[in-house]
Amino acid sequence: MPTAILNDYLRRAIERKDYQAVLQFLEEFQAVDLAELLQTVPVDAARELLMYLPVVQRASVFGHLPVDWQSQLTTAMTDKEVSQLLRHLDADEGADLLHVLPENRHDRVLRKIAHAEREALRRLASYEEGTAGAIMTSDYMTVPAEITVGKALDVIRKSAPNAELIYQIYTVDAQYRLIGTLSLRELIMNKPEARIKDVMTTEMVKTKLSAKQEDAAKLISRYDLLSLPVVDDDERLVGIITYDDAMDVAEAEATEDMHKGATIGPLAGNFRDARLFTLYRKRIVWLLLLVFGNLISGAGIAYYENIIAAYVVLVFFLPLLIGSGGNAGSQAATLVVRGIATGDVTISDWRKLLLKEIAVASGLGLTMAAAVSLIGAYRGGFDIAWVVALSMICIVMIGSLVGLCLPFILNRLGWDPATASAPLVTTLADASGVLIYFWIAAWILHLPAP
Amino acid sequence: MPTAILNDYLRRAIERKDYQAVLQFLEEFQAVDLAELLQTVPVDAARELLMYLPVVQRASVFGHLPVDWQSQLTTAMTDKEVSQLLRHLDADEGADLLHVLPENRHDRVLRKIAHAEREALRRLASYEEGTAGAIMTSDYMTVPAEITVGKALDVIRKSAPNAELIYQIYTVDAQYRLIGTLSLRELIMNKPEARIKDVMTTEMVKTKLSAKQEDAAKLISRYDLLSLPVVDDDERLVGIITYDDAMDVAEAEATEDMHKGATIGPLAGNFRDARLFTLYRKRIVWLLLLVFGNLISGAGIAYYENIIAAYVVLVFFLPLLIGSGGNAGSQAATLVVRGIATGDVTISDWRKLLLKEIAVASGLGLTMAAAVSLIGAYRGGFDIAWVVALSMICIVMIGSLVGLCLPFILNRLGWDPATASAPLVTTLADASGVLIYFWIAAWILHLPAP
Repeated sequence: MPTAILNDYLRRAIERKDYQAVLQFLEEFQAVDLAELLQTVPVDAARELLMYLPVVQRASVFGHLPVDWQSQLTTAMTDKEVSQLLRHLDADEGADLLHVLPENRHDRVLRKIAHAEREALRRLASYEEGTAGAIMTSDYMTVPAEITVGKALDVIRKSAPNAELIYQIYTVDAQYRLIGTLSLRELIMNKPEARIKDVMTTEMVKTKLSAKQEDAAKLISRYDLLSLPVVDDDERLVGIITYDDAMDVAEAEATEDMHKGATIGPLAGNFRDARLFTLYRKRIVWLLLLVFGNLISGAGIAYYENIIAAYVVLVFFLPLLIGSGGNAGSQAATLVVRGIATGDVTISDWRKLLLKEIAVASGLGLTMAAAVSLIGAYRGGFDIAWVVALSMICIVMIGSLVGLCLPFILNRLGWDPATASAPLVTTLADASGVLIYFWIAAWILHLPAP
Repeated sequence: MPTAILNDYLRRAIERKDYQAVLQFLEEFQAVDLAELLQTVPVDAARELLMYLPVVQRASVFGHLPVDWQSQLTTAMTDKEVSQLLRHLDADEGADLLHVLPENRHDRVLRKIAHAEREALRRLASYEEGTAGAIMTSDYMTVPAEITVGKALDVIRKSAPNAELIYQIYTVDAQYRLIGTLSLRELIMNKPEARIKDVMTTEMVKTKLSAKQEDAAKLISRYDLLSLPVVDDDERLVGIITYDDAMDVAEAEATEDMHKGATIGPLAGNFRDARLFTLYRKRIVWLLLLVFGNLISGAGIAYYENIIAAYVVLVFFLPLLIGSGGNAGSQAATLVVRGIATGDVTISDWRKLLLKEIAVASGLGLTMAAAVSLIGAYRGGFDIAWVVALSMICIVMIGSLVGLCLPFILNRLGWDPATASAPLVTTLADASGVLIYFWIAAWILHLPAP
């Protein structure tokens, strides 16, 4: 981002109140780039720059700003300025802005907006975060089923300025129940005198208001849709989710899953700009929980203290063995968690995958046992090599199976399978690895049980 | 998927050669669902079912099949059947099919296709995997800049059946250099007598043929595009990448990054259906590499054998301490790796993030030191509590900094930052953790250096 240019050329233009020069400069940017640029200057300057823009472009840029910036900027704006923004934002972004405003400003700001629009915004803002309702827009395009294609094109031409997406058109009955859909492409390829009801599709993919946003996004991606209609419990059309919002949801979900996979709680914004205390809070919970998991490993080691005292060389192989179990387990857990998230793996696949994992883990365990038995023989002789090799096979197998099964078990318990993070699997594999290792050592080396 | 229904109703319809019944059944499905259904029956039956479909729908279903199914099905098809498919597939899918066919069939199959189409397919198939060229389609829509909006609509209406996406229209000059773009929405909202060159946008987002596919997908997501034009080194328009392909690329990239984050090599297909040996091969490499990393930890422990012999209680805290360093490090690495992948973090942010991580890791280390010092005091008295607490602070700090810096360092070396996997960070943190722990123990407990 050309921050330097901004600070130089633009600042001077602002100082001499050269409205034309500022506008000309700003207009060269795409809205999303301008939003990024604004975040590099102080809030006051950002607000001033925003106000230079014509209101349509201003709303477009504002819609790309993160929540905390929206909050700071609106605090510095008058009610009139905010309601002007609200009117020009896409309906779904407008609803998000209502969430950002303090309760006591809602009424003052909404009062300046036309009744129908106000009610639509209120309704959109009322859906629970994370649902299809919360990410849909009410600016979609409907045409009556009875009119002709030619007439429908006229309708679309007239309403286009108010719709977020005009490439997928819906038809509803008198009760506003969704009955059909057709694309603008199909529309313009048909004869102008054809009736909509004869050319529309009645088989269509749709979702419920209360569906999870990631499931709605998955439908859009699976069926290559431009928009997904959202219906209420009475099958009435209440909104659409557009492909670009689905992309954002898919990206945010993937980020959340990756963070979960490393025991980090969901971050609302961007990691780079997250506050110190937020980062601390999102990370400390699992770190502390895992300490208690690791106490089991510690207790296992303490229990076998006499074996360690007799064969201190065994400790040399401890990190290597339990580490390998944790690593193989993390691999298996990640494959399953991501598979479930993308829909490639379903819960009913667990049996098939378990058998496959046993086969793959056997291969992994045998290869690694071969590698470490040489080191074992070198450092501790034949007996130690035998202990280390056998332990490796068992530990890799147990680690892999823990990694494979944990996401399915968590899902069964109604939890997010992504909670089966690499550190959690590693901790469980470590604890079982310690017990397996010393138990095998005691057995092969003919040591008395502690 | 209603596999049971397929096996029952459909099989009977096929057996009695009731073409109508089969077709009626198949037509109720969306192409992607039908492709999934086909994968539940033997290849021969799948081929037969596919052949029941009209060729347009057949191509659409075929395009949704995974590569190994495409390969098996085309092996069972005649050259004529394959070239018929090729003609009806979207250009980018057709190019992918050419990759699937054995070399010696290329010419035979392509000979049955019109010259222009054949050359377009050959060219598309020639771009390197993973580049913008490899995922673009040549079925895009151009109109001359000189014609009117009304005339352009006629052109679009006529060419719509051959274009993959008609909602974004491009204009090129005599040398086929990209000079402007406008959306179908803008087109129908303008007066029919307006000239294209007066209503089109000349500022546009585009990409090069050789750009990475994930970077192209990021542009589509960032600018909410329906399609991204791809130009060659002379700025000539050679294709477009559509939003739906960008969604697929983004999903595949996120999967690859998650797998890398757990030391799994890139899998071409779906994890559930991957072959045993493929899974083994993608997992064993890093598992073996990490064994050698863990040898450092083992060597560290062996080096301090006399300290362990003197204070066996120290081993109790070993998994807990080094585990915590690894976990905090995995968190930091994951935050950075995902941040770089989404573009939220850029390489130049490293200094800012380093300072933040020092602050956050201090908080994490202090909290965890407080927790474990109580356990330390309980099991080993004041001195041990002191050793454990101080070690925890240092280990969490070192682990976090390793996790934070590793992706930046890897990137600097020209490697993928996602190689900074949780297991790699854990292994590095373990090794340094062992050394830190025993060094601090030797110092506080006044033990002689080994």
